[in-house]
Parts: sequence; C-alpha cells; structure tokens
Amino acid sequence: MSLRTGTRGETVPPVPSAHAAEDTADRAPGVDIAALLERGRTMTAPVLRAAVDRLAPPMDTVASYHFGWIDAQGRPADGDGGKAVRPALALLSAEAAGAPAEVGVPGAVAVELVHNFSLLHDDLMDGDEQRRHRDTVWKVHGPAQAILVGDALFALAGEVLLELGTVEAGRAARRLTVATRKLIDGQAQDISYEHRERVTVEECLEMEGNKTGALLACAVSIGAVLGGADDRVADRLEAYGHHLGLAFQAIDDLLGIWGDPEATGKQTWSDLRQRKKSLPVVAALAAEGPAAARLGELLAADAKSSDVENFSEEEFAARAALIEEAGGREWTVQEARRQHAVAIEALDSVDMPGHIRDQLAALADFVVVRKR
Amino acid sequence: MSLRTGTRGETVPPVPSAHAAEDTADRAPGVDIAALLERGRTMTAPVLRAAVDRLAPPMDTVASYHFGWIDAQGRPADGDGGKAVRPALALLSAEAAGAPAEVGVPGAVAVELVHNFSLLHDDLMDGDEQRRHRDTVWKVHGPAQAILVGDALFALAGEVLLELGTVEAGRAARRLTVATRKLIDGQAQDISYEHRERVTVEECLEMEGNKTGALLACAVSIGAVLGGADDRVADRLEAYGHHLGLAFQAIDDLLGIWGDPEATGKQTWSDLRQRKKSLPVVAALAAEGPAAARLGELLAADAKSSDVENFSEEEFAARAALIEEAGGREWTVQEARRQHAVAIEALDSVDMPGHIRDQLAALADFVVVRKR
Repeated sequence: MSLRTGTRGETVPPVPSAHAAEDTADRAPGVDIAALLERGRTMTAPVLRAAVDRLAPPMDTVASYHFGWIDAQGRPADGDGGKAVRPALALLSAEAAGAPAEVGVPGAVAVELVHNFSLLHDDLMDGDEQRRHRDTVWKVHGPAQAILVGDALFALAGEVLLELGTVEAGRAARRLTVATRKLIDGQAQDISYEHRERVTVEECLEMEGNKTGALLACAVSIGAVLGGADDRVADRLEAYGHHLGLAFQAIDDLLGIWGDPEATGKQTWSDLRQRKKSLPVVAALAAEGPAAARLGELLAADAKSSDVENFSEEEFAARAALIEEAGGREWTVQEARRQHAVAIEALDSVDMPGHIRDQLAALADFVVVRKR
Repeated sequence: MSLRTGTRGETVPPVPSAHAAEDTADRAPGVDIAALLERGRTMTAPVLRAAVDRLAPPMDTVASYHFGWIDAQGRPADGDGGKAVRPALALLSAEAAGAPAEVGVPGAVAVELVHNFSLLHDDLMDGDEQRRHRDTVWKVHGPAQAILVGDALFALAGEVLLELGTVEAGRAARRLTVATRKLIDGQAQDISYEHRERVTVEECLEMEGNKTGALLACAVSIGAVLGGADDRVADRLEAYGHHLGLAFQAIDDLLGIWGDPEATGKQTWSDLRQRKKSLPVVAALAAEGPAAARLGELLAADAKSSDVENFSEEEFAARAALIEEAGGREWTVQEARRQHAVAIEALDSVDMPGHIRDQLAALADFVVVRKR
C-alpha cells in the first residue's frame, strides 16, 4: 500500500506543514474557542458534580480524584479535567437543532460520565500510571476502585438522561448506549492488536472509529436529540462527530509517539511502550522500503517479548525514527487532514444556524491543530 | 443487641427447624417451581444469546464461556447458567400487570445481563476463582476481558430495553439503571467492610439490600413496567423483590460459611476466606458472651493479617464454630424467615391474578428453602 493513498484509495495531496489544519485555522475567524470550551465546562460542571455526589463513599471521593476536584490526600484541587471538547459539542448540538444550549446539558454530562468510565477502565487494563499529569485512579486507590467507580459513572450516565422521563431522553440514552458498546468494542480491538504482529490500516481505523469516533459522534447528536431533532439530522451530526473523532485520534496517535510528556501528561513514547498498533505504526508497516522492513522485524520480535516496558529511551527512539522514515508520521498527519475535511462535509449537509455551524467547524479545526 | 431481636426491634420467635420456610413450603401446592424456572430460561435464552452475539470478538467467546454455553477450549457446553430466578420473576412480573409473559422478556434479558456484568466484575475484585463449578472468567481469559465483557453486558442491557423505543422501555431502563447503581454501591460497601473490624447488622443489611435486593426488586417490577403498570404498582412489586432479595442473601450468607462446596460451586468457608462481614458474622459479633468475645478477638487480628487465605481448614472451622455458638447462624436463619414474611406481605398488597400471586409466593418459598 502506498502511503500517499488514503484508506478509500483517494490520493491525499502532500502538505507542507505538520499541522494539518493550519490552513483552515481562520475559517471561522469570529469564534472564540476558549470561550466555547469554557461555556461547556461551566454549564456542565455543577450537574456533573451533583451526579458524582450521589455515589456511595468511598466512590464519591475516588471519582472526585479522577475528575481532578481533589488530590490524592482529599484536599481540594483545581485539577485539569481535560479539554472538555465533548461538553462544548453537546451544547452546540442542542443549538444546532434550534433548542437552547441548556437542553444539551444532561447529554453533555452523560457523555462526560461515559468518557470517564472508559478512562478509568482503560487505564487499568492498559496499565497506564499517569493521566492528566497525575497518578491514575488504580495507582492511587487500587484496581477494585477503578472498576467500581467506572461502573458507577456508566450507570450514572443512564440515570442522568433517563430521569428526564421524556421520549427524547429515551432516544438519547439509546444512542449513548450504542456508542458505549462501540467504545468497548474499540478497546477490545485495541488490546487484541497489541499482541498481533500485523494490523492493517483498515483494522486500525475501524478500532479508532469505535474507540474515539463513536462517543464524539454521540456528543454531537445527543443535544440535538434532546432538542427534538429527528434521526436523519442526528445521524448526519454523528457523521461529523465520527470523522472529527478519527481526526482527533490521528493527532492523538502522533502525540502518543512524539508528544511532549510535559504537554500530554503521559510517559515518553507511551504508545510504543504499550505496543499500540496506532496509525503511524500500521501505516509505516504497510509501506515499502528498508525502514518499513526493519521496523517490521523489530516489532515482530517485540510482540513476542515480555521486556518492552524495560526498553531504553534509545530503543524507543530508534523505533520512532523508523516509523517516521517509513512515512508513518506523515501519513497520519495527512489522515487527520482528510478526516477533518470529511467531517466538515458532513457538517455542511445539516441545515442549522450559520453561527452554530461556524462554531462546530472551529472546534473541528481546534481538535486537529491541538498540541496536547 | 440480643440475637433474638429483629433489625427493627421486633421479637423474632425461635424456630425449631433450620429451614426457615419449611412450614410455608405448601402455601402454593399447585405451583411447579421447576417448570416456572424452565419457562424463564427457555423464553429468555434465545434473546440473551442473540444479544451476546452482537459483541465483537473475542468478547462474544468470553461471554459465552461465562454463561456456560462453551467451555474454556471453546467447545459447546451445557453449562450451569444459574437458577434463573430473575428471568422467572420478570415474566411473572409482566403477568402480574395483566400483560402476556412475552412482554417481560426484554426485561428478563436486561436484568440477566446486568446480573452477569456484576458477577464478572465482582469475581475479579473479590479474587474469586470459581463460579458455577468452573474457573471464573478472569482466571481463564484474564482481568482485562473480565472488565471489558462486564462493561459490554451492562451496555447491552440498556440496548435491549431502549431499542423497544417505547415510553415504558424508558421507564424500565431508568429503574434498571437505578438498581444497577445500588448494586454497585453494595459491592463498594461489601469491599470496604472486609477491612473493617466492626460492621453493624444494620450496615450489613443495607449493603445486602443494595447488592442483592435492588436487582431482584427490579426483576419483579420490570415486566410490569413494560406491561404498562404505574409507578405505585411497580414500587410495591419492588418491595416484594427487595425483601425476597434479603431473604435470598441471608441464605447465601449461611451457604457462604456452611455450604457444601459440591452444591455451591465455591470453596469451603468461602466468605470467611474473604473476611466477608456477612450476616452470620455481624450478628455473632453483636451478641454477648464468651463466644462472641473470642470471635471478635480473632476477627480483629484477621482484619490486620495478610495471611487469611492461607489459613488451615481447622482455623476456618474454629471461626465458623464460634459464629454458631454466638448465635449468628440461628439469627440468620430467623432473618431469612422474617424477610420472607415481609416479602409476602408486600406481594399481597398488589392486586393481581390469584395464580400469578401464588407463583410469586412459591418462588419466594423456593428461594428461602434452597440448599444451593
């Protein structure tokens, strides 16, 4: 497979810049991304906290630690709760259907709860010790609490929606449940790929569509569904969210290898440490030439090794250099750009107020240019 | 606290027999319990299997192993899928509301999915190696699969209900979600009690009400809700199920100490091995006299020990003998009888066809006299 060919066979033009959306950053010049994210955070936070407060001790404390509201000693903290892209999307989703942003709040909270349920369980399954610059829940509070609190957040998500008691809430809960199952499918695929020698680009994209695309898609439809949008509109919004998720994940895959630990809050080479078959890796392996061949040999040996976590910085750096030399890094940059373009196309197939469209487009740009 | 006093202070009369419901066993002489359980199993199984078939590999295989449909090598098995009390209850629940049993099927399946989600996660958290006479999922397929497949079954439960697309399904899903969160609360309490020196009888009953009562209560209301029953009827049916669950759990607690491993499928003294603060233990500790005092000393030391799992049979037998001597065994037998009586009282507060009432009453008797 040529690295200059997209997954559906289209030719992806070479780009001069590593920032796929650099040339799109001024598409919606009037949009204040920081304010948009802040609105999502501010409107969602009290409802999210009230939901978490319902948990029986010590799960309320463990969840508060996970969300960054308290530190490991239980002292109030002003933690990094993540970028809050999903809440911002859920509120815009309601507005896209002509409803006030408030209508999207239970959807935003439910999506955040599911997202954090998956983080708690994934960190444990993956053995990740750091998240958002802090020790992960299973490291601080033990595996049982990570499992339990994850389960509890998932259940809370259903509660927050279904207690609205409306037909729309039932439809929203159904979409969220389906998205959650895709997310779990994606994690299952991700884990199974770690011990496989070969994973195709198509398999990787399917996994990432499940693991990242499905919930982002749901964030973009859930507000609209709560606001009364029909399934056709919801499906198109989900298409935008799905491709946005794939663009987001392509960037995440780049950061998982070449990201600055200071900025990502993860270890250096974190995806290589975990033998993740992420996009740069599978794209590099699918290439031709000596770098791809050498990388293939190394990773085939690594797949059988139980010693990968003890590799030196140099050993990881050598693998990263081969991935780049084989074109895996550049292909992934291009893939992010391609998914971004498809997302915008889907967005423009939905009839909505122009300023809402511009804000959704600006969020897509933000996701693709983000450095963390 | 006197062991001859119930949890709300009522005096519980002494009984001559260890089988709490022996004298009630012929209350509904016309009811064929085996046929009732078989109907629940037969009507639920195809829908349950179809739901599990939706899971991405290898989760479908892991779930099939858990349900006993295949063995660890993937060969078809005719496994012990449990007594299937919950499906039987969910179908009767629909009939109690005047709907055909079929209406309860999605509810029965959803409750079974949630029940098995909790078994998968609890076995991992508790380190239980055996369930239904077979190695548990985490022992055979590893902790990650136990977490993932549990998550997937929980999500499937929501899907199975919500794809009905009716207002009733939304109400049923809400009740199921609330019950699931109670179940998680109960597991959190159970875990936290293992390392505490003292747990009151009240705390233990609250924990068991969450861990066992809530989902059984939901099984008894979910069919009725799907059949159009109002919240008042659903709440009363849940009261019956809640107390039935507490009776069930009291028996389970007896079996957790004195049960025959051949019949229970668990290790001998399994609850003592895990330092479970189950009803016989907390009731014995709350008693007066030398046996209770000696038991208190032993368990206080055990709570600080990391060596409990390596105790000899004699050491566990000595603890069990002290629990019995202090009256904890007899009190728990009485408690099962008391909860059974309250359950029947709640049942009789609901207006329903007489033969359905008799079948629900007979199931309550069955649960309390069961030896496994």
